[in-house]
Amino acid sequence: MTSSHFADRLQARIADTSPVCVGLDPQIRKLPSGLDHSPEGVAQFCHGIIDATHDIAACVKPNLAFFELLGWEGMKIFWDICAYAQSKKLLVIADGKRGDIGSTAEAYAEGYLHENAAVDALTVHPYHGSDGIRPFIDVAARNGKGVYVLVKTSNASAGELQDLPCGDEAVHEHLAQLVESWGAAHFGPKTNLSCVGAVVGATYPEELKYLRTLMPHCPFLIPGYGAQGGTAADVARGFIPDGTGAVVSASRSIIQASGGSDWQDAARKAAETMAAELRKVLSA
Amino acid sequence: MTSSHFADRLQARIADTSPVCVGLDPQIRKLPSGLDHSPEGVAQFCHGIIDATHDIAACVKPNLAFFELLGWEGMKIFWDICAYAQSKKLLVIADGKRGDIGSTAEAYAEGYLHENAAVDALTVHPYHGSDGIRPFIDVAARNGKGVYVLVKTSNASAGELQDLPCGDEAVHEHLAQLVESWGAAHFGPKTNLSCVGAVVGATYPEELKYLRTLMPHCPFLIPGYGAQGGTAADVARGFIPDGTGAVVSASRSIIQASGGSDWQDAARKAAETMAAELRKVLSA
Repeated sequence: MTSSHFADRLQARIADTSPVCVGLDPQIRKLPSGLDHSPEGVAQFCHGIIDATHDIAACVKPNLAFFELLGWEGMKIFWDICAYAQSKKLLVIADGKRGDIGSTAEAYAEGYLHENAAVDALTVHPYHGSDGIRPFIDVAARNGKGVYVLVKTSNASAGELQDLPCGDEAVHEHLAQLVESWGAAHFGPKTNLSCVGAVVGATYPEELKYLRTLMPHCPFLIPGYGAQGGTAADVARGFIPDGTGAVVSASRSIIQASGGSDWQDAARKAAETMAAELRKVLSA
Repeated sequence: MTSSHFADRLQARIADTSPVCVGLDPQIRKLPSGLDHSPEGVAQFCHGIIDATHDIAACVKPNLAFFELLGWEGMKIFWDICAYAQSKKLLVIADGKRGDIGSTAEAYAEGYLHENAAVDALTVHPYHGSDGIRPFIDVAARNGKGVYVLVKTSNASAGELQDLPCGDEAVHEHLAQLVESWGAAHFGPKTNLSCVGAVVGATYPEELKYLRTLMPHCPFLIPGYGAQGGTAADVARGFIPDGTGAVVSASRSIIQASGGSDWQDAARKAAETMAAELRKVLSA
């Protein structure tokens, strides 16, 4: 019997492919040669990246900003791309970093995580506290979807708020314990992982290791691999000791691997290399 | 000579109207009688609320969640509504609570705050620290637009992260000082207020008063009035002593003032009452 729980679906897919998550951050002015610098070119580019990587990666992470930048036509492309990715068996993590309260959070959750949505999980901001997260979790749990809460981001200034010392712990460590608790009622029957995950950057490997101990049941989404500087050895610290429990996202190093007409081959090779590097450290 | 600085434009508009900001949170199932429970009904409703309140309120605050919930068609309605509001001289604060870093933050900023956008300001999440805010500020400052950073939200669990004690200050108080500093290079020539503002909830009046001292140059967007419990006396603490520097948003108490066929009259009356209550406390 298959489980429709998000973490179980994701882990099954990882087992068939790799923990690679391809970040779809399509910037019009950086589209490779041969594609129109237009919304249509963005759509073709995303289709092409999916075609080139769908049997290597577990999931794609379309970044809503680059679609919203194109106005409502961009949102149409976003939904088309998500449906196309799912048709290729890729799970879709919508990187929207939404975050609000009450009926507004419900509206975001229903918008992106309704039962038939072409999205499997959504990234969310934690600043409102549990009021801002529970509506997402309720909808996700009901519909076999996931939520990834930003805990420790990969950027240079992440620590300005996230590392503020509160007693003997940092803000993001306190949050990590909240995230673990929010997910406690929602473990997948196969993986024992929750539908509530955490975004934890590859660029802070020591924190990554510690945060795994604070959130033993949370799927991790680990950005910052490749172009941002995180290595396979770094991200390995975010996995559960058995080598499960996380996906690692890379965007530029895959989708901009070549700006020439060989962009699809280059993306495929970059994804294959990344998958091999991850397999190596995870089986070590 | 008129200034095209966001804070100057907003204050001039407040002087002509009131500090009332009408929150456009159109929920299909709560549309008043006589309107189709459909995206078309949402569009008619928003137009109707704008028609009823445009000469009373300084601005509207369309909440992106309720438009995104309707898919890309909803985003088309969002942009139409924003343009309609601007055509009625209302400023538009897009309540999107976006937040990301680098090129992604730039994409959100360009998407909502480009020179000809039918949006005047955008709400943003602070969790990434300055990397997540500067791209928004750069675009906003260049284009005469504004950015409102979430500092202290109006919800019950706001304190879970925002009030964590860091040394002798709370997280949100530390953030408040960052927000003031981020805006320091961008004061309007007429108001001496920045294009970088803060969202500070009406439901924590003591904090509101203290946060005004920490952010003397930041325009405040104060939610939580009316249905959430904030009173005119509460929100007065967020204004500068001369009675300027803030807008107060209300959604349910205006747009759901009546569910019957008199919804436009009821919305107008609710906005008039709120404007009168604010004038009274601000002139006291």
